[in-house]
Amino acid sequence: MTQGNPLPPNAHRNTTEVAHLVQRPEREARNAHRGAVVWLTGLSGAGKSTLAMRTERALFDAGRYAYVLDGDNVRHGLSADLGFSVADRDENLRRVAELAALFADAGFIVISAFISPLATERAFARSRFPSNFHEIHVRASLAVCEARDPKGLYRRARRNEIADFTGISSPFEAPAAPDLVVDTEALDAEGACARLVEYIERQIGL
Amino acid sequence: MTQGNPLPPNAHRNTTEVAHLVQRPEREARNAHRGAVVWLTGLSGAGKSTLAMRTERALFDAGRYAYVLDGDNVRHGLSADLGFSVADRDENLRRVAELAALFADAGFIVISAFISPLATERAFARSRFPSNFHEIHVRASLAVCEARDPKGLYRRARRNEIADFTGISSPFEAPAAPDLVVDTEALDAEGACARLVEYIERQIGL
Repeated sequence: MTQGNPLPPNAHRNTTEVAHLVQRPEREARNAHRGAVVWLTGLSGAGKSTLAMRTERALFDAGRYAYVLDGDNVRHGLSADLGFSVADRDENLRRVAELAALFADAGFIVISAFISPLATERAFARSRFPSNFHEIHVRASLAVCEARDPKGLYRRARRNEIADFTGISSPFEAPAAPDLVVDTEALDAEGACARLVEYIERQIGL
Repeated sequence: MTQGNPLPPNAHRNTTEVAHLVQRPEREARNAHRGAVVWLTGLSGAGKSTLAMRTERALFDAGRYAYVLDGDNVRHGLSADLGFSVADRDENLRRVAELAALFADAGFIVISAFISPLATERAFARSRFPSNFHEIHVRASLAVCEARDPKGLYRRARRNEIADFTGISSPFEAPAAPDLVVDTEALDAEGACARLVEYIERQIGL
């Protein structure tokens, strides 16, 4: 994660030298919008998944090409070999960053919904698709998230049944300069989605 | 790779339980074709990359949504942490299989262009998107591939400068029952592409 984009010594070995014949601008022209990475970050219970799903639906209904990356489709597949240690979560986010960049290259508006607690993780994700990357802080206070506790995880973390739980026993580095804050204490699910969709629509014009 | 789809003991921990609101059938209806994984397998020099690129172009020109996964966009990113040992190549292919399944879920015709020498690797890839997976043997004899040697790799492998080189010092398990064989000794690049596109068009009808 922190090492940038390392190439193994023999990386040239099996890598293709045949040029891709369809590039992103052509895909974007067909889709009538740019590819983008919309990277949600926030505490467990802040509302990232709900916001991601509603936003994907709203963008699809508006004729956009959008795809959500979340624990559901990444953790059971690409990252099924990883656990939840700090190192494994970091590697998971490295992979999500690469995955998001590929989908954006293919013309999608990617919405990633992971806590992504560390500034270095989010900076790495931005570095993989710098031309149209957006760091969105889905914000609610720890107290509110803990009171919501939709999966009962905070309760288990307080009982020390979960190690390295973000906000309790592992840090959350709130974004210093997010591209957008969506405050889910002030906005309901519908309002939060409207806010994010309005923001995205301003970023994806050709 | 061989372990199916293992879930770590605490896999439930961070995984989303919010349902995705846009499913594949809606994406396929909009694209007017099904998502699919077209998995090319064959020796180095058999012509996988050239075939993949031409096919992507032809499908795009026909209004399809297609995307190539190859060393160029996978090895420099998602698998940049991996080398070329047998174990690392196996892990690379596991990730490509998962990546291909995600792109197919998003409605794309994915064309993956990796040697993928082992039957177990290809069987795993199929298991990740069984509903519309196609194993394509891009076939040319070892002697012909070695004579072509577009990257000079066979020459280096014969000098023992490359370990575990498929066909020389590492096995290639030719598909026992491929969905299609594209013989690049008998067909030129244009003919090979035409053959594969014609095959794909028969697989992606709604």
